[in-house]
Amino acid sequence: MAISVTILGNASAKPTTTAHPSAQVVNINEQLFLMDAGEGVQRQMARCGISPLKLRAVFLSHLHGDHLYGLFPLLSTLGLYGRRTTLRIYAPRPFGAMLEGFLSLFERDLPYTPEWVEVDTTKHQIIFENDTTEIWSLPLRHRVPTTGYLFRQKEPPLNVSKYSIERYKLSVSQIVAAKRGEDIALNSGEILPNSLLTYRPYEALSYAYCSDTNYSARLAKMVEGVDLLYHETTYAAAEKKLAKERGHSSTVDAAKVAKMANAERLLIGHFSSRYKDLEALCEECREIFPLTEIARERETYCVEPKRQRL
Amino acid sequence: MAISVTILGNASAKPTTTAHPSAQVVNINEQLFLMDAGEGVQRQMARCGISPLKLRAVFLSHLHGDHLYGLFPLLSTLGLYGRRTTLRIYAPRPFGAMLEGFLSLFERDLPYTPEWVEVDTTKHQIIFENDTTEIWSLPLRHRVPTTGYLFRQKEPPLNVSKYSIERYKLSVSQIVAAKRGEDIALNSGEILPNSLLTYRPYEALSYAYCSDTNYSARLAKMVEGVDLLYHETTYAAAEKKLAKERGHSSTVDAAKVAKMANAERLLIGHFSSRYKDLEALCEECREIFPLTEIARERETYCVEPKRQRL
Repeated sequence: MAISVTILGNASAKPTTTAHPSAQVVNINEQLFLMDAGEGVQRQMARCGISPLKLRAVFLSHLHGDHLYGLFPLLSTLGLYGRRTTLRIYAPRPFGAMLEGFLSLFERDLPYTPEWVEVDTTKHQIIFENDTTEIWSLPLRHRVPTTGYLFRQKEPPLNVSKYSIERYKLSVSQIVAAKRGEDIALNSGEILPNSLLTYRPYEALSYAYCSDTNYSARLAKMVEGVDLLYHETTYAAAEKKLAKERGHSSTVDAAKVAKMANAERLLIGHFSSRYKDLEALCEECREIFPLTEIARERETYCVEPKRQRL
Repeated sequence: MAISVTILGNASAKPTTTAHPSAQVVNINEQLFLMDAGEGVQRQMARCGISPLKLRAVFLSHLHGDHLYGLFPLLSTLGLYGRRTTLRIYAPRPFGAMLEGFLSLFERDLPYTPEWVEVDTTKHQIIFENDTTEIWSLPLRHRVPTTGYLFRQKEPPLNVSKYSIERYKLSVSQIVAAKRGEDIALNSGEILPNSLLTYRPYEALSYAYCSDTNYSARLAKMVEGVDLLYHETTYAAAEKKLAKERGHSSTVDAAKVAKMANAERLLIGHFSSRYKDLEALCEECREIFPLTEIARERETYCVEPKRQRL
C-alpha cells in the first residue's frame, strides 16, 4: 500500500521555459489526488501518463494563480472526456465564487459537477477520510489564507500469522479475537501475547504537502514523524529576508522544519525562476537535513517506510 | 515592412503531450498581436523568445476554453512584470463579463488595465487602425459567435526616385506633388506620368487568421487576394461530415477557401488530436491548393510578397 508523489510543476509564479507552476499528483492506495493546479497541469499529467479521469479529488493550497490557473482547463477537459461523477475540490474561501463564475461563464453544460469543499485554513483537522486514509489540513503562513495537506494511511487491521494458527491450533473465535488485538488464552492456561500472533500487512505511511509558507514551528509539530515532507523552498538561504517578506521559505527554513518534525525525508520545490542551479539549493538544505531531494518535474517519489522501523 | 506569424499552438481542444491549443503571435511592422490564447500560451511565448511585455493587443476569435484559458495567467504575469499601459483585448461578447469576473476574483491589483473591445462577429469591418495597418473582423461560422481577423498593411506613401529627381531636375513642389500621386508637367510642356517618377518603398501585405469555422464561401470573398491565409483544418477529408456538424473545417474545406480567395499561401492548423500524421492532412490540401503548409508549433512563417508581383 504505497504512497507516491508525481511532480507536475516545481516552479513559483513567474513562467519559465523549463518549469511549470505548482501541481502534483499524490497516489495513495491507488487513489489519485491532485495537489494544486498551476497552468499546464493537464498537459503535464498527459506527459506523465496519468489520466485525468482517474482523479479522485483536487486540493488547492491557496488561491494564487500559479496554483490554480490550470484547474479550469482541466475541468473543461474532464467534460470533453465525459466524466460523470462529482469532482470535489478542497480549497479555501472564496474558491466557491471563482468556481461559480467559471461554470456560469465558461462551462454551462459540464456532464459532471465540480463541487467545492471549503477548507478552514486556520484549523488542523481531518477534512477527508475513508477506510484507509485520512487527509488533514495544515494551516500555513502565506500572504493569503493557505493550507497544506497531510496524507496519513490508517493502520491496517491486524493479520494473524499462518504459523501461529498452525503452531497453536487457534480456533476461529481465537483468530477473530487476535485480530481485534486481544491476547489469547490457550486451553493449557498459557497466555499468548497478541504481538506473538499478529502482524500489520503493511506499514501506515504519511506525506505532507506544504506550499506556500513562511517558516513555521507550529507546522513542524503538525507533521511530526512524517515519512515524506514536501516543503517549499522558493529562495536560497541568502534571500532569507525576501522569503520572509513574501510569505515564502528559504532552504534553511524548510530544512529546519524537516529536522524539527523528525521527518524521514524532505522534498523541496516551488523554486524562484532566478535559480538555475537547483542542486545548490538542495545542498543548503542537506547541511541541516541530509535526506533532502529536489522535486523534479515528471519524476515520481515513493514514500518509503522509516529506516528505523526496518 | 514584414508580417510574420509565430505559431504557439496548433491543436484543437483535447490536450496532447505534443501540441498546445490555439495561439499565435502576429508581428506586423514590428508590432506584436496575440491571436487567441490557449492554455500554456505564456510558456510557449517564452520558449519562442517573445516577451509578453511587447504585446500591443490581444484578439480572441471566440470564447471556447481552448482559445482562451491561457489568457488569464498571461494577464497575471504581465502584472508581475510590471506592465503599466492598457492592454486591449478584442473579443466577442460576453468576454467583458469574463474579464470582470477574472479581475474581481483573481487580480484586484494589476498595475495596468486590461480593456475589452467588443467585436461584432456578424460584421466584416475595420476594428483596429493605425498609420500602417488595418485589422478587419471576419465573420466565421462556428458553434458560438466567432470572428477571424484580417491584417492588411496600408499602401505605404509614394517615394520619388532619386534618379527622377536628378534626371528631370524636379523642384521641391514638384516632388511633393509627385508624392501625392500627381503627374508632373515640366517647363518644356512635357507631362511625366507619376508612375515614371515614384515607387512604393514596400509592398502592402496581408494575413488572415480564420479559426474556428465551417466552410464559408463568404469568407473566401472577404479574404480575396490575401498573401497568407491561416485556416483551420480540424479534420481530414474523410471526416467532412463530422467537421460540418461540429462547426469545423476539413482539409478540403480550407483548401477550397484558399483557392476561391486566390490566396497566395495557405497555413493549416487546429488539428484534432486523432491525427498523428499531419503531412497526410497537408497533402489533402495540396491536391486542391498546392501552396499549403502545416502550422508547426514554435515555427515562424513570413508573409511573402505575391509571386506574380515579383
